[in-house]
Amino acid sequence: MPADSSEGLGPQLDFLQHEPLSRTRGGESLQKQLLHRIRTAVLDGRLPAGSRLPGSRTLARGLGISRNTVTLVYDVLGVEGYIELSRQGTRVAALTRPEPDGRAHRSPVPPALSQRSDRIPRSRMGDVDALAFTPGVPALAQFPLAAWRRSLDRTLQESGTGLLGYGPPQGEPALRTAVLRHLALARGVRCVPEQVVITEGAQEALSLCVRLVTDPGDTAWVEDPGYRGAQTALVGGDLDVVPLPVDAEGLRISATDWRDRPPRLVYTTPAHQYPTGSVLTASRRLDLIENCRDLGAWIIEDDYDSEFRHSGEPLACMQGLTPNAPVFYVGTFSKTLFPSLRLGFLVLPEALVDRAAPVVDEMLRGGHRCEQLALAHFMESGQYSRHLARMRRLYRSRRDALRAALAEHLDVPHTVTGGDSGMHLTLRLPADFPDQPVARAARRHRMAPRPLSRSSLLPHSGHNGLILGYGNTPVSSFVPGVRQLAQLIRQSGSDGLGRTLAPSSSSASHQP
Amino acid sequence: MPADSSEGLGPQLDFLQHEPLSRTRGGESLQKQLLHRIRTAVLDGRLPAGSRLPGSRTLARGLGISRNTVTLVYDVLGVEGYIELSRQGTRVAALTRPEPDGRAHRSPVPPALSQRSDRIPRSRMGDVDALAFTPGVPALAQFPLAAWRRSLDRTLQESGTGLLGYGPPQGEPALRTAVLRHLALARGVRCVPEQVVITEGAQEALSLCVRLVTDPGDTAWVEDPGYRGAQTALVGGDLDVVPLPVDAEGLRISATDWRDRPPRLVYTTPAHQYPTGSVLTASRRLDLIENCRDLGAWIIEDDYDSEFRHSGEPLACMQGLTPNAPVFYVGTFSKTLFPSLRLGFLVLPEALVDRAAPVVDEMLRGGHRCEQLALAHFMESGQYSRHLARMRRLYRSRRDALRAALAEHLDVPHTVTGGDSGMHLTLRLPADFPDQPVARAARRHRMAPRPLSRSSLLPHSGHNGLILGYGNTPVSSFVPGVRQLAQLIRQSGSDGLGRTLAPSSSSASHQP
Repeated sequence: MPADSSEGLGPQLDFLQHEPLSRTRGGESLQKQLLHRIRTAVLDGRLPAGSRLPGSRTLARGLGISRNTVTLVYDVLGVEGYIELSRQGTRVAALTRPEPDGRAHRSPVPPALSQRSDRIPRSRMGDVDALAFTPGVPALAQFPLAAWRRSLDRTLQESGTGLLGYGPPQGEPALRTAVLRHLALARGVRCVPEQVVITEGAQEALSLCVRLVTDPGDTAWVEDPGYRGAQTALVGGDLDVVPLPVDAEGLRISATDWRDRPPRLVYTTPAHQYPTGSVLTASRRLDLIENCRDLGAWIIEDDYDSEFRHSGEPLACMQGLTPNAPVFYVGTFSKTLFPSLRLGFLVLPEALVDRAAPVVDEMLRGGHRCEQLALAHFMESGQYSRHLARMRRLYRSRRDALRAALAEHLDVPHTVTGGDSGMHLTLRLPADFPDQPVARAARRHRMAPRPLSRSSLLPHSGHNGLILGYGNTPVSSFVPGVRQLAQLIRQSGSDGLGRTLAPSSSSASHQP
Repeated sequence: MPADSSEGLGPQLDFLQHEPLSRTRGGESLQKQLLHRIRTAVLDGRLPAGSRLPGSRTLARGLGISRNTVTLVYDVLGVEGYIELSRQGTRVAALTRPEPDGRAHRSPVPPALSQRSDRIPRSRMGDVDALAFTPGVPALAQFPLAAWRRSLDRTLQESGTGLLGYGPPQGEPALRTAVLRHLALARGVRCVPEQVVITEGAQEALSLCVRLVTDPGDTAWVEDPGYRGAQTALVGGDLDVVPLPVDAEGLRISATDWRDRPPRLVYTTPAHQYPTGSVLTASRRLDLIENCRDLGAWIIEDDYDSEFRHSGEPLACMQGLTPNAPVFYVGTFSKTLFPSLRLGFLVLPEALVDRAAPVVDEMLRGGHRCEQLALAHFMESGQYSRHLARMRRLYRSRRDALRAALAEHLDVPHTVTGGDSGMHLTLRLPADFPDQPVARAARRHRMAPRPLSRSSLLPHSGHNGLILGYGNTPVSSFVPGVRQLAQLIRQSGSDGLGRTLAPSSSSASHQP
């Protein structure tokens, strides 16, 4: 408590009296205003170190405010270290301050990002959910939102405040069990509930795998062309990312690859290679599993859209192919339900679960418990399977319609691959119709196909074309959209647009 | 399509005829069963490479199922690469298989986690939300759940399926603006909306800072004792984590520290140091800011519970102390609303925002849009501020009651620090009452105070005591809880329990 003093406020406190404190109703409190003014005066040197401040009674009288307000302000300033309160009175503290000319001597180096941030591939195209042909977005308008709202609201109502705490980091037990049951039945995954971890979408699952089994500088193999989100996760984990080619049988690995640059981690999309759509054959799967086992390496199996197999039974997953496969199985509800739900899952390899579980507990913080329980209920009540079946029919008919529209209206040389599963077709174009100018131009027509060349880490991969999503695009848009694209493709090939723009933009975006 | 054949099924297909396919209603489909049996037979060698399979008509007749089912199964097996379909008939493909004795030669090395995983401190104590004295959990029963449910449901209803897509990775613009307004007013943060990023709680915000401005091997300073979650994020980013001491004026940095182990990143809790409760003085704040500026280093200001200042105005934040401070400001709604909401925020430094934004766009995936919009509405309508004010009063009264209970019923030597803000008090105990056995024993009485020694990275820090959370513990539990703790503390000091258990457990948990 500052000792009282009967001196006036003095010239140093002119700044307080010059402009009176504002007393507008609902405006900033007097306490807050006074605090702010004194702090600023100390910081900008108007109140130099050692200046004596009047006692609280004097200052209160001088400003026409209550003494209690001044006392509280002095208390806060004392705790913050701006002033020193002693029996001898109140003085401004000596703050460590840079010399006035200190700043001028500093080299004007602009602040830099880390090298690992600079290595992250830039491929996002902004908010394209609603545009035509955006890959990876499911049919949002078809989602049974009313049923989901009921499920959420009932969960909140039934569980009351019991769901507000942190909860188990690996996810709600009810959801882990529901996911396990579904995966065992629909995908042939072999696991016990302890292996299932609920994550913030597939992206967190990928980062978790990276952290659990790799160290900076380790080698990771990816499919090329491939899914850029996976490359982001691997680069983010400071791995040396090696692109390997893909053919009609999926990821193609040579004996030289195993010998010369053995991986610690292999990322693959065996059921429906993204973006080419090929299926990793049983022979290559076994080969990959056995080689990784020998090497002590691990496989990430990203099963992102395999629920939507358009002919016959879904292909079995790799994780369940042999007992105790060295596989992290990753999936997401972003494609099967909706992206902003932001829930995914990871099945830890059986051999690793005991060691990994305590680390996962530290890395994750749980959360979104209400959504998790509502989802568990949605799955256990059969609503999830019914929705999947409905979407499978929908996507199949959209795929057929898009194939037909391409066959009839795309009057430029092209081939179409993929489409046996999922929600996209891949259109390959000759090199003289560069894909990136087409994709940029398409945005002006509210279309967002993804340029195939951006899915490659290699500077001259030869991959050129468009990834056409049909999940969230109605059939009625296909014919006009394909006609428009045909025109843009012809332009990129004929008017030199491509040849002028492609080299610089591709060199910027192809940095691995 | 396999060519027809009129041969019988032959001995190799005995496995199909031996046990008939199950025709239970609601059981697995015939297609799925047949697929599974043939796959398994190929994998386990009962159908060796080159074996000829009967034509679809023959197999269908032999099994008494429709030919269409067999055709679909053969299609899938063909795509998966288990069989080869040609005009000459259907044969089992040659799968690459490990030699029978290959496995035996493998050394039985147990699978290992990465080194960076092994370095993650293990400090989680399981699901302790509901236990007495758990630090960091707010008063869950006091949360206005009905109002929150209404806000969520109205958002879902009004936005329809418009909120189901990915959305902007950095968060909903409405929430970013609401957070900015609140921070500017309540915490003195200086920023524009572009600097605000909505994250999955503070933990994702910390990881993001680490990735944005550091590379593996860079030095990071932390407070010791300090918040283990931050250490997890820094270790997870492969940083060299250096613990620096804390005193009554907060983080204490010497000239030697700046010279001998200059940091790239400094983590601090200036408003209410966790766990000791001291406030970083203005002088030290300026010093830290100016030194980091000179060095090109960055500060993470974790403002985790500063909204609950128990005397006078909240202390101003460090981010707004000087223009363009090299500060990442991090906060969370886990303490102000509820943990399972799992939303936090990060204010990027002004100087970095242009470079960082595209990287953040790649690293985050948006999501939880409905919760974000409901929260924006909760803030803009004033419900958030009202809830904060109510909780501030509640926590103040709980703090007073806990202090009184400790003063009256804790009959062992101790000192109490902190409690000017937030939801915990720190109890320091003499070294001969080791804290970890007390904390373990407390769990048996449904109490989860955190042992202070676990907040230190140093093997012989001398930090010994209990962090007592009062956020989610009702006043009625304080007196019986403190009496029980007093008894456990006396036991740990007298019966040698501590001396037997402490060394091994502390060496295990103190690995940096």
